[in-house]
Amino acid sequence: MAKWIWNRGDFEIYHASLLNNRREDKGHYSAPMWRTDGIRPNALLYKIAELDVPEKLRVHANCACSVRVNDAVYDADTDIELKKGRNFVKIFVYNQTGLPAAYAEGETFASDESWMSAGYGADDLNVGCNDMYLDRDDDPSVFVFRYETLTPVSAEKLNGGTLFDFGRETFGLLHVKNEKMSCGTVDVIYGESREEATDAAHAIITDKFDTSRDGASYRARALRYVFVGSESVTVTLDYEYLPLEHKGRFICNDATVNKIYDVCAYTLHLNSREFFLDGIKRDRWVWGGDAYQSYFCNYYLFNDFDIVRRTTLALRGGDPMTQFTNTIPDYTLFWIIGLYEYYFNSGDIDFLRFACTKLDGIIRLIDSRLDDRGLFIGKRGDWVFIDWADTAKTGCVCAEQVLLYAAYDATAKIYEACGYDGARAFRARADAVADTVNSLFWNERLGAYVDCIGREDRQNVVTRHANIFAILYGVADERKSAIIRKKVINNADIAPITTPYFEFFELDSMAKLGEFGYIRDMLMNYWGGMLRQGATTFWEQFDPSRKGSEHYEMYGRPYGMSLCHAWSASPIYLIGRYVMGVHPTSVGYGTFEVSPNTLGFTDFDGAVPTAQGDVEVSLHDGRFTVTAHRDGGTLIVGGKRIPLGRDESVSCPV
Amino acid sequence: MAKWIWNRGDFEIYHASLLNNRREDKGHYSAPMWRTDGIRPNALLYKIAELDVPEKLRVHANCACSVRVNDAVYDADTDIELKKGRNFVKIFVYNQTGLPAAYAEGETFASDESWMSAGYGADDLNVGCNDMYLDRDDDPSVFVFRYETLTPVSAEKLNGGTLFDFGRETFGLLHVKNEKMSCGTVDVIYGESREEATDAAHAIITDKFDTSRDGASYRARALRYVFVGSESVTVTLDYEYLPLEHKGRFICNDATVNKIYDVCAYTLHLNSREFFLDGIKRDRWVWGGDAYQSYFCNYYLFNDFDIVRRTTLALRGGDPMTQFTNTIPDYTLFWIIGLYEYYFNSGDIDFLRFACTKLDGIIRLIDSRLDDRGLFIGKRGDWVFIDWADTAKTGCVCAEQVLLYAAYDATAKIYEACGYDGARAFRARADAVADTVNSLFWNERLGAYVDCIGREDRQNVVTRHANIFAILYGVADERKSAIIRKKVINNADIAPITTPYFEFFELDSMAKLGEFGYIRDMLMNYWGGMLRQGATTFWEQFDPSRKGSEHYEMYGRPYGMSLCHAWSASPIYLIGRYVMGVHPTSVGYGTFEVSPNTLGFTDFDGAVPTAQGDVEVSLHDGRFTVTAHRDGGTLIVGGKRIPLGRDESVSCPV
Repeated sequence: MAKWIWNRGDFEIYHASLLNNRREDKGHYSAPMWRTDGIRPNALLYKIAELDVPEKLRVHANCACSVRVNDAVYDADTDIELKKGRNFVKIFVYNQTGLPAAYAEGETFASDESWMSAGYGADDLNVGCNDMYLDRDDDPSVFVFRYETLTPVSAEKLNGGTLFDFGRETFGLLHVKNEKMSCGTVDVIYGESREEATDAAHAIITDKFDTSRDGASYRARALRYVFVGSESVTVTLDYEYLPLEHKGRFICNDATVNKIYDVCAYTLHLNSREFFLDGIKRDRWVWGGDAYQSYFCNYYLFNDFDIVRRTTLALRGGDPMTQFTNTIPDYTLFWIIGLYEYYFNSGDIDFLRFACTKLDGIIRLIDSRLDDRGLFIGKRGDWVFIDWADTAKTGCVCAEQVLLYAAYDATAKIYEACGYDGARAFRARADAVADTVNSLFWNERLGAYVDCIGREDRQNVVTRHANIFAILYGVADERKSAIIRKKVINNADIAPITTPYFEFFELDSMAKLGEFGYIRDMLMNYWGGMLRQGATTFWEQFDPSRKGSEHYEMYGRPYGMSLCHAWSASPIYLIGRYVMGVHPTSVGYGTFEVSPNTLGFTDFDGAVPTAQGDVEVSLHDGRFTVTAHRDGGTLIVGGKRIPLGRDESVSCPV
Repeated sequence: MAKWIWNRGDFEIYHASLLNNRREDKGHYSAPMWRTDGIRPNALLYKIAELDVPEKLRVHANCACSVRVNDAVYDADTDIELKKGRNFVKIFVYNQTGLPAAYAEGETFASDESWMSAGYGADDLNVGCNDMYLDRDDDPSVFVFRYETLTPVSAEKLNGGTLFDFGRETFGLLHVKNEKMSCGTVDVIYGESREEATDAAHAIITDKFDTSRDGASYRARALRYVFVGSESVTVTLDYEYLPLEHKGRFICNDATVNKIYDVCAYTLHLNSREFFLDGIKRDRWVWGGDAYQSYFCNYYLFNDFDIVRRTTLALRGGDPMTQFTNTIPDYTLFWIIGLYEYYFNSGDIDFLRFACTKLDGIIRLIDSRLDDRGLFIGKRGDWVFIDWADTAKTGCVCAEQVLLYAAYDATAKIYEACGYDGARAFRARADAVADTVNSLFWNERLGAYVDCIGREDRQNVVTRHANIFAILYGVADERKSAIIRKKVINNADIAPITTPYFEFFELDSMAKLGEFGYIRDMLMNYWGGMLRQGATTFWEQFDPSRKGSEHYEMYGRPYGMSLCHAWSASPIYLIGRYVMGVHPTSVGYGTFEVSPNTLGFTDFDGAVPTAQGDVEVSLHDGRFTVTAHRDGGTLIVGGKRIPLGRDESVSCPV
């Protein structure tokens, strides 16, 4: 079977450009804050093979194209005879306005990942392709979504117009049908909340409808509500989505937790499109930190590897790399860590090797920011983010060094997996950074890593952030972790984490420290709290102390906050990883452990997907039961290790 | 006055992509052999200025656009009020299918080269703009040409069709008008020669005409003849050209030489388009070696600096630089040498500084090919060209080292002019290469630089190429030059130069050695020979021993040769530089010399343009007369140096 093929990596850069430049704000084009890259407008795609018997070949392209077979030149869409023996087939494509791509129908020479793409001085690489584009009539310049028609659950006459409610947050192309033509244009106001849809002055996504026409269709947007300033209209919505299967599942004796799991899954799904997005309404951008967390949730829900690959390449962008991912060095470090996590979960060495061609440029950029101790110091234009919190943003920031350690550690493992030189050098770099962090940032008196060194104002400031990272990424040893648990994590004097973004890291580290009560409380109060506020998807931020529409305010704007934000889907991961307790212990889930926790539930049934089969975990009558539909598992309960045979159910008391 | 503005350098990369991918061969798309680069699809263009009084601003773009003034956001094509005091105006543009560009109408904030473009991690640079795009309704995605309607000088019924002759080589959009509709499609065959236009099987540029239609229009192509396979058609041509002024001129007592000068000028003009092309029919590509020679002719004919800038940027392409210009290392070295020549002729330090941002990547690429002696050794994929001749193409090639010396020398001068560090280092590199070449390649017994070292088969081979370069670029001292003159240049046993490409360098070096008789002979025999064959533009190659249509054969194809090839225009340069004898002796023609030679003429009148005024040179009654319409000149005749006052005529005996 043939596949559309192109210069590998350019599909993602091209669609990232389309996506990141699609943001709008009250009708204005809203440009990304970081560099958008273009792609090479042409490609030379080739394959060499010996044929035992002659074969036919026919090449199709989405652009200008010619085909050279040995010494003869052919056009696209003509029948080509390949002779017996060695054939060298070159396809030249040129597309100035889209992604140059070709599709070769044949036998041995059917286009697929065995084809090569000329590097023009750089190494030739295998071509890019994607199982979304297997048909001759496809066009990889157009991203493929599925559609489903939705009708509003209610329509309400209001202020001379109509307010439609689709019942929950959704995303799609609005179609307005006008029953009675008049004249003049009226507002079309999208709202994630009723308040936003009825506030023309402050709503973020707005459009116009010409009432002299019998209808109109609009580009895909996020909404639960939409207000159209006419009483004579009806609307439908082409819900636009990616057909990702919810392979992970969890149901327990607590209805709120079940609802949380479902709403998390839906929230993540809405944000899982060309790439993992931050939120579905406002930015709709690809952010490295948000994506990193989505990867973890994805492994436990869709277990879709392609969206991780796509997101990884989109975030990396082109060369030369002149700034950090989204301008944020921490996000670039997460790119490396996330790449190794991808490999560890998927075992996909082919992608790892390809992504490795993009690693050098990152390392060079990081190197340009190292001080003579080998520590990371941001330059002007680098946005040291860590969190929306009062952590140091300049100088020698502890949290950044811990991520630097983790990124070097990941680089060493990546190089090792690929069999490349340099693994040892990065192992040494990692060890050196860990040692330096422990000697320069650890304060025994405070029982914590300090936020920052070399700045008088922050020398003795302790934030949760660096300490959480130190536990998560293993810079803190067991003794230090125990001290941090007492002096930082369980210390009400240390400012609490306030963003769901960093809550992901906090809860992950809490779970590592066995603080399951805290996780249960957060589920009920934080995510349960949003549900009690009527959330149909989870929010960018939640402050239980706010009232009514105050909840929607952020970045100084009444509806600035995203009500459907991927980073709020972390319970998917936390439940899969720590309640069902499933996690790989070697590359590609070759071996894995199941270490379930009740988290206070009396009953649950669930499953965690892996590439070679699901792992079902349940709790009933005080016993965990695990059925792994794949080899390599070990159940760990109460210190006992029980091997899990493929498709066998193993049960043991809690 | 406002100008369209964009990310500087991207205009040229964008139009180079369009141009280089426009080549066709019997209807097939014919891809460039080197990497084609894309551009960044968006731009952040900005300006900060203090206003004494409020001003109006209105921004227009050729794509998605928004404008941020201080903290307020505006759409394109709306009136914006700029307040008194400091204003920070940002224009965001996004164009996925063309060159993102904007046009701001206003006073202080009218868009021009004072605006900056965000570097996104790289340095912010001044924007790009071009005097071709000064009107709000322009679009820099579209290159601007002039048009003039031509009608054929003859039409001849032939083989059931009509052969049209436009009288001389030209280039444009053919329009066919059909007087009598019938059915079926017939051939449209373009020919630079009558033979080509009547040889459907071998003609290179062909099209089809549908005789059921009353007419058709075609894309711009080169032709003198066109055959349409119908007797009922008439044709016209929209001659497409750049309105370049022929500022240089030369007329003498020899009608053949006058014709040569005019045909050279026309040949160069046809090839002077978006960039300097090689030939107008076949490749229509931008080649570094061809362009380098066109620069010299241009300084003496159009003296148009913009086309040199455009060509320089088009040849350089984007980053990271992974291969040499057109894959040819010699062409990359000419890029550097040509850049300094540009500065030396124009004095344009602004462009030099900008081009300098592109120099690092070139030096890095060169560095990757140096052996431990600092000499250039090509790698697989590098096309060591030098000439279509039997010179060494692999190993340590002498001609390449001489160009390496010249490129280092130019780099040192460029850095010095810009006031950058590194000038001294490149001066040292240049000296070291010259010393190494003189010690390793010079063979006193042979009285020549040998072609190549380290290869048994070529150790003692002498070609003209390396020796000509050694004289031209100053690696050979006076003593060695004199020996080379005797042992190589005037040695019939050394294979002669056979291409007009290298003839440029040979004649230039001959002139430097005072061998004017040879130049006169070449003019009469080589260029005069083409005229006697009926040439209306000068050819890619000319072998007087060929007969009839054999002249059109090249690259193994009956009409493979280009009959309008820029590198055959060198008499323009040779006459301006050595007959009229005008040449700069300091940057930007700040000082210049006029050292005329009769070349055997009894009378001539001519002029050489410079940015600040023409220099007229004539020969009558045994006296040279020079009128420099600018300061800084010195007339040198018979060893005497006579200062040239501005606009004063100075006359002296030959």
